[in-house]
Amino acid sequence: MVLVGFLQAQNCSNYPASWRHPATAGDFMTLDYYQRIARILEEGKFHLAFFDDRLAMPDRYGDSYIEAVRNGVRVVKMDLTPALTAMGLATRRLGVGATYSTTYYEPFHVARLFATLDLMLGGRAAWNIVTSLNNSEAANFGQREHLGHDPRYDRAEEFMEVVLGHWDSWDDDAIVMDRANGFFADPAKVRRLDHEGQWFRSRGPFTVPRSAQGRPVLIQAGQSGRGQHFAARWADLVFVIYANLDVARKNYRAFKDVVAAAGRDPAEIALAPAIYVVTGETRAIAEDRFAMIDSLAKPIDTLALLSEVLNFDFASKGMDEPFTAEELASISGLQAIRDRVIQLSGKANPTVRDFAEFSGRGRLREMGLFVGTGKEVADQMEEWFTAPACDGFVLAATHMPGAYEDFVRFVVPELQRRGLYHKDYRGATLRENLGLRKPPVGSRPWLKW
Amino acid sequence: MVLVGFLQAQNCSNYPASWRHPATAGDFMTLDYYQRIARILEEGKFHLAFFDDRLAMPDRYGDSYIEAVRNGVRVVKMDLTPALTAMGLATRRLGVGATYSTTYYEPFHVARLFATLDLMLGGRAAWNIVTSLNNSEAANFGQREHLGHDPRYDRAEEFMEVVLGHWDSWDDDAIVMDRANGFFADPAKVRRLDHEGQWFRSRGPFTVPRSAQGRPVLIQAGQSGRGQHFAARWADLVFVIYANLDVARKNYRAFKDVVAAAGRDPAEIALAPAIYVVTGETRAIAEDRFAMIDSLAKPIDTLALLSEVLNFDFASKGMDEPFTAEELASISGLQAIRDRVIQLSGKANPTVRDFAEFSGRGRLREMGLFVGTGKEVADQMEEWFTAPACDGFVLAATHMPGAYEDFVRFVVPELQRRGLYHKDYRGATLRENLGLRKPPVGSRPWLKW
Repeated sequence: MVLVGFLQAQNCSNYPASWRHPATAGDFMTLDYYQRIARILEEGKFHLAFFDDRLAMPDRYGDSYIEAVRNGVRVVKMDLTPALTAMGLATRRLGVGATYSTTYYEPFHVARLFATLDLMLGGRAAWNIVTSLNNSEAANFGQREHLGHDPRYDRAEEFMEVVLGHWDSWDDDAIVMDRANGFFADPAKVRRLDHEGQWFRSRGPFTVPRSAQGRPVLIQAGQSGRGQHFAARWADLVFVIYANLDVARKNYRAFKDVVAAAGRDPAEIALAPAIYVVTGETRAIAEDRFAMIDSLAKPIDTLALLSEVLNFDFASKGMDEPFTAEELASISGLQAIRDRVIQLSGKANPTVRDFAEFSGRGRLREMGLFVGTGKEVADQMEEWFTAPACDGFVLAATHMPGAYEDFVRFVVPELQRRGLYHKDYRGATLRENLGLRKPPVGSRPWLKW
Repeated sequence: MVLVGFLQAQNCSNYPASWRHPATAGDFMTLDYYQRIARILEEGKFHLAFFDDRLAMPDRYGDSYIEAVRNGVRVVKMDLTPALTAMGLATRRLGVGATYSTTYYEPFHVARLFATLDLMLGGRAAWNIVTSLNNSEAANFGQREHLGHDPRYDRAEEFMEVVLGHWDSWDDDAIVMDRANGFFADPAKVRRLDHEGQWFRSRGPFTVPRSAQGRPVLIQAGQSGRGQHFAARWADLVFVIYANLDVARKNYRAFKDVVAAAGRDPAEIALAPAIYVVTGETRAIAEDRFAMIDSLAKPIDTLALLSEVLNFDFASKGMDEPFTAEELASISGLQAIRDRVIQLSGKANPTVRDFAEFSGRGRLREMGLFVGTGKEVADQMEEWFTAPACDGFVLAATHMPGAYEDFVRFVVPELQRRGLYHKDYRGATLRENLGLRKPPVGSRPWLKW
């Protein structure tokens, strides 16, 4: 079972109300905060700490940032690299991953940044490949409108070819560093990329040698049809959001079929749904905690984040007004969320209220939610894992860092006792700890080697 | 006197032959290497550790990377953020600065990255504003040709307006974080930028609150006419390369006049020339060291780096063939280097050999070079400082980390004894340690407040 911490370099966790929790640490704008979390995750032998990101405030709702700022709905969003580096320095085995956009960054830059992190952290870096999804991000990056769903995946595909191409520029043994003879590196083991495509040109040679794990681990989280095909092609790890076990079981099997159809071994890509866990000494304590934490949420959390993630202004419609077919088709953000609402509500034309209820956006019920003692939570995780409905979990925090502390103290030992989860790291690199081979130069996920 | 360490996240220091030195540390691809250097600099009370950068290998010479790779002429170039973060974590007062290009990055990204670093390091970050200069960089970023000298400064000017505009988006006291009432931040103290210019559009609001020093310290190193005007307008610190004291004295005064003409107090911008220092227990030891280190240089170091920095293929001409007026005019890289060669050689049409000799590129004589005991080096630094020819120095390393260790042990105590240099940091932020005020929101360097 793979375990990943789902982090934000923001003023709240995935759960926007988390900052209102009385025990949430207030120093989220310091490196110390992220280093403390990293140490907790490593104590729990987590494979990876992973940061989500978005390149704008959630200001699509009513075309205004006022309520989001007042209520602290993910309005502070910092660059992820400093926190990532700090977490890597505070740990020895924990992998560290971050989201960087294929829509607004250049492949040479992204390739260089993640190769540097991976090299300098001894092969423990991961990159979460995203396509940016809303007009607020586009407006910060000088574009009037956000790129549509399919063109941004076209761009992302070519982006990957450039990035992986650059990561293949140096052979493992290229550097000689013979000082006496002034022979630094073997030029026969360093290559230009000379990429010329539809979206990008990039020549090289790349300026960062290969890391201990060959190249950073690749993460993807697309759940739309196109997103799944992209993930099946490129990813080592796939993160998803499933509403419940039934949905998870069905979609897990469907995704593994997509992976097989893409010519890859389905066992090679770990699929991990996001979950919240609320635990405690007794079931009553855990349930009281859940009720308290759940009560911190406000309707604006949901409406601001729905507007952001679907790139649609939910203030433009009444709460009980159904979406028209045209409006549903115009949603260019995370289409998987739209499809989930249609599926769970059983309505072809759901209302704003349906979106709020069935997406669960900004609420604890958005993702898998396990409440109870350590043993009870482990029971639920085991049920999902053995269904099978997943290969592991991405643990989001109800509050920070308490949710991770509780999980590590109450749940991890129980998972280890049952043999579901490793007792210690097996290797030095993230790939080793995920059971993945070091990819040779020139290899692609869908090519056998 | 301001002291700055001049670093590279590369396989060598500014001096490309440095990697061939027998005592140069080999672990330049680890974070530990940069943290050790940071601790040495902080032991010497350096104000700032600063990283230079370029977004390509030096492969303009003969349009080939072969010799650069074989000879290790700055071919490994890593992203600077991980090293910068690590150095900030290893120290308490040392400022940390890095180069990020205005030519190939987006202002929203650069603003967010440096604001995050500054916030998370307690107000100790600096950004070195550069315009990227050669076709190799352009080719990595998808462009066939590098942007000309003046257009890239036009773009840089507007880039600054966007970055500083975003840095002014949050008032110092915007964050309230009243958990009980769910009041996170005062929306009246957070603003959109709504920038619409010739090169960029960026809307905001920015997602990073203000740091302890208001905004990152700004560094610039342009020595061309246009570069000096840009620096006079925006910079807090200016780094230059002067061939000798005479040149330095003249240019120092000329630059301070440009600053005054831009409406700023010339005392407000510290100008620091780059220097190498070779020191030791006795003069003879220092001189022997210098001879040994100087002998490590190879002609390819100079030719590869001249081609890179001037964006001109020096393999296209014979060693003693004079440059035509058209060729000299076509140089689109660091024009200050071309002008220096014309001035020092006394020739309107210098040859390749003249460029190699009078630029000193890739050699120790490229910049100010002080050799001797601690006392003798301090004498020379005092002479420059009191001429006046500078407000401090940017110390490049002949080898790593030995050059900094020697300087801190032999030279720093002597400078402190003479009252030329501070005995300890006076404040917590980089601006405090540089004697600069915290700029209020909305202030610009050339506006009085």
